[in-house]
Amino acid sequence: MQRAAALVWRGCGPRTPSSWGRSQSSAAAEASAVLKVRPERSRRERILTLESMNPQVKAVEYAVRGPIVLKAGEIELELQRLSSSQWPLGGAGSSACVLFPQVMALCTYPNLLDSPSFPEDAKKRARRILQACGGNSLGSYSASQGVNCIREDVAAYITGGMRRACGPDNIYLTTGASDGISTILKILVSGGGKSRTGVMIPIPQYPLYSAVISELDAIQVNYYLDEENCWALNVNELRRAVQEAKDHCDPKVLCIINPGNPTGQVQSRKCIEDVIHFAWEEKLFLLADEVYQDNVYSPDCRFHSFKKVLYEMGPEYSSNVELASFHSTSKGYMGECGYRGGYMEVINLHPEIKGQLVKLLSVRLCPPVSGQAAMDIVVNPPVAGEESFEQFSREKESVLGNLAKKAKLTEDLFNQVPGIHCNPLQGAMYAFPRIFIPAKAVEAAQAHQMAPDMFYCMKLLEETGICVVPGSGFGQREGTYHFRMTILPPVEKLKTVLQKVKDFHINFLENYA
Amino acid sequence: MQRAAALVWRGCGPRTPSSWGRSQSSAAAEASAVLKVRPERSRRERILTLESMNPQVKAVEYAVRGPIVLKAGEIELELQRLSSSQWPLGGAGSSACVLFPQVMALCTYPNLLDSPSFPEDAKKRARRILQACGGNSLGSYSASQGVNCIREDVAAYITGGMRRACGPDNIYLTTGASDGISTILKILVSGGGKSRTGVMIPIPQYPLYSAVISELDAIQVNYYLDEENCWALNVNELRRAVQEAKDHCDPKVLCIINPGNPTGQVQSRKCIEDVIHFAWEEKLFLLADEVYQDNVYSPDCRFHSFKKVLYEMGPEYSSNVELASFHSTSKGYMGECGYRGGYMEVINLHPEIKGQLVKLLSVRLCPPVSGQAAMDIVVNPPVAGEESFEQFSREKESVLGNLAKKAKLTEDLFNQVPGIHCNPLQGAMYAFPRIFIPAKAVEAAQAHQMAPDMFYCMKLLEETGICVVPGSGFGQREGTYHFRMTILPPVEKLKTVLQKVKDFHINFLENYA
Repeated sequence: MQRAAALVWRGCGPRTPSSWGRSQSSAAAEASAVLKVRPERSRRERILTLESMNPQVKAVEYAVRGPIVLKAGEIELELQRLSSSQWPLGGAGSSACVLFPQVMALCTYPNLLDSPSFPEDAKKRARRILQACGGNSLGSYSASQGVNCIREDVAAYITGGMRRACGPDNIYLTTGASDGISTILKILVSGGGKSRTGVMIPIPQYPLYSAVISELDAIQVNYYLDEENCWALNVNELRRAVQEAKDHCDPKVLCIINPGNPTGQVQSRKCIEDVIHFAWEEKLFLLADEVYQDNVYSPDCRFHSFKKVLYEMGPEYSSNVELASFHSTSKGYMGECGYRGGYMEVINLHPEIKGQLVKLLSVRLCPPVSGQAAMDIVVNPPVAGEESFEQFSREKESVLGNLAKKAKLTEDLFNQVPGIHCNPLQGAMYAFPRIFIPAKAVEAAQAHQMAPDMFYCMKLLEETGICVVPGSGFGQREGTYHFRMTILPPVEKLKTVLQKVKDFHINFLENYA
Repeated sequence: MQRAAALVWRGCGPRTPSSWGRSQSSAAAEASAVLKVRPERSRRERILTLESMNPQVKAVEYAVRGPIVLKAGEIELELQRLSSSQWPLGGAGSSACVLFPQVMALCTYPNLLDSPSFPEDAKKRARRILQACGGNSLGSYSASQGVNCIREDVAAYITGGMRRACGPDNIYLTTGASDGISTILKILVSGGGKSRTGVMIPIPQYPLYSAVISELDAIQVNYYLDEENCWALNVNELRRAVQEAKDHCDPKVLCIINPGNPTGQVQSRKCIEDVIHFAWEEKLFLLADEVYQDNVYSPDCRFHSFKKVLYEMGPEYSSNVELASFHSTSKGYMGECGYRGGYMEVINLHPEIKGQLVKLLSVRLCPPVSGQAAMDIVVNPPVAGEESFEQFSREKESVLGNLAKKAKLTEDLFNQVPGIHCNPLQGAMYAFPRIFIPAKAVEAAQAHQMAPDMFYCMKLLEETGICVVPGSGFGQREGTYHFRMTILPPVEKLKTVLQKVKDFHINFLENYA
């Protein structure tokens, strides 16, 4: 089930009362409590403090779960979780596709394989997975690269999609896509001073990228997506970015998010060709984050995988360009994010580096085996003739049809509001509208030591209970403001949310006119 | 189920055909294949190579899944996985405690809550977990710190064990214990040159520690356990190590593994007090790896948690010493390692650092929710009066009784072999016997460019199919040799294994006399 991480409405969001927004006051409270009880002894200076900690970790920013979401968590606690707090793709307590929990339950508790209440194809899938698991159980460690037969299924899935062989040796199962992305970046980063590795990322970006770059003390190289042109990626902008970066670092990696997060654009085949040619020319290692590959809504857009285009461009590219691409169980039409399933496919990776990768992965033993099983279900959907096929097809169509409807609805409604402009939501699961913030509101934000869009989003949360993430957390051109909002709530709720945002915005413009 | 990661006998071990032991030959094979197909074009130099990669990652060593285990994987493939390849605590396909898969299946597929074939207390547990999950599903993201009610259960478990309150705010659910250990180390490491953070670890150690220290470019500070004294930790040795380390780094962290891995010793209460006093005195941040806390076999040993002892030492210690301790679903009597469940408890962590920790954890969104649910079952076992109580008690007693029997059996049998000495296996799941390697064998190993114990273990694998991990992967005093072997196989199999090791060893001594 897909949890609405970015939109929290009347009670949603992380449940942690810890907060890096509130830390100073609670530190003070704790210190005074200590003093109260034992006034004769003061606390020694601590070993681990903001001053002594890892400065790269301190520099990490992660807006998707930042102050706004923490504030929403507090409001949620106040409201005692009275109302529905999540929008899973299949409705609370149920999955989008019933085959998913059926196979997972059979794998979890194999005694159920004798039960007549499970369809035969669910049992067949579960038996296949269990046979490949150590001790025939999800509870055993797997190989660090992932269960063999699941990697074979992933390879067959990729092969089917592009009619070109993919070997299971190139597949690494991961703890969600985030794990794969940070693992390959960890291997890629090297050098010091001007030869420190530069990692090119889109702006706006998904903040996992900036966070990992900061953790690894690599150099973030921004390239800006073209908002005037539906957030398209322009190769001239890549060229500008790489040239400027060469002055102070060694640009070695180019990250692409397609379909875009938070921007939702779907890249054209031509654009992907241009990017691959650019990577070839500039000797850049390509990272293609394709977790939203099943979430394409605009009728004039189609998802093209980087790998497929790479192979179609001929041997000079297909045998030279180094590429890692990522997929996940968390998106698509199943949206089973809690299981933390994902995979990485590598192309043209040096065999010695593959060895290094397995070594690095083996330090954490293995990805969660339940997440690996979840990945198997995603890449191995029912086919015509199987017992679950018809229901599954209905469920899939319903989920994706609904998302497409909500994508259009959101775009249309935002564009009716004066001072809001929203590009088409071609894919993924978010709107990233541009918002006009009047000069007086910018001043008020400065007075509160907040970014203007953070100020806007905080007001929105306080006044309406709707939680969206400010654009500054994803990056945006200076002087422009945005927010990211998920389109996961059910249609009627989404309409209410959009209406409330509209009313709030009009009111906000008036207040700060 | 516990998979026997370290002992691989006739077909066991990671299933990956990738290997960092075989990388050069396959690189050559791949290169020649390319040349054969397209002789007119040579491959361009790759971007990511052993030379250009992250040198810290290259320096990582991880013996538990190193060349020996990979070789075992190859042998396994040859044998077509004909024989039982794992030794889960409950036997292939079934769990050690049936309550575990029951609760997990109910959480996975809530429709089963209506089924009469599950005990009421399993349903009660599943309902409680699901109510706390987003969308009432394991498939939704949770808070980054972990599901609230599960952290409350962990806190109650700790409180019950030490009769002293533990707050859920101090509990962080993790992706196995490894994740918690590497996360807190990541925050702790800082400084450059002589003020780079030194991390004290036992020798022999579990190689997660050396691997993470290498990844973080921190300084590994070895302290040696006392083999002559049942692998006890001696504070004088800690003092020696820290004094020497101060010349070239800033020792800031002291890691303890209790019960020991690979050495199996269980620390006395007195020893723990001494260590805590030492950490207080030297201003060291304590890391207590207590994942084997339920695996204590010697009748004269008892597990004491660092936290409990810390609190009993009085307020000067309990309000000043900074401590992070770790537990896991992977060991104990359930051994459900595939789910990657674990938790970290922090004591005296600065509130600002707690905020930093949540921020860092949030970059990976959340630990697998199924692993969190697994952790809940471990810390929330049935109590008298509950439907599952009697069966659960029988199962637990059977698993732990069997492990104790096998611990004694292994020690006794090894000590009958000339040239092998084995300390008592007080706890954990391994034997780490010292082996005598004759000078001629050391020479033969050098001729093969292998460590002598690696040479020994490779011979053992080739001649008997038994896979054990050489002591050099864990660290050992120079000139001494060991291997780590798990005691997880069923008693009869274990006897056969031990007999084969004995025969092999006697033969080995004769061959290289």
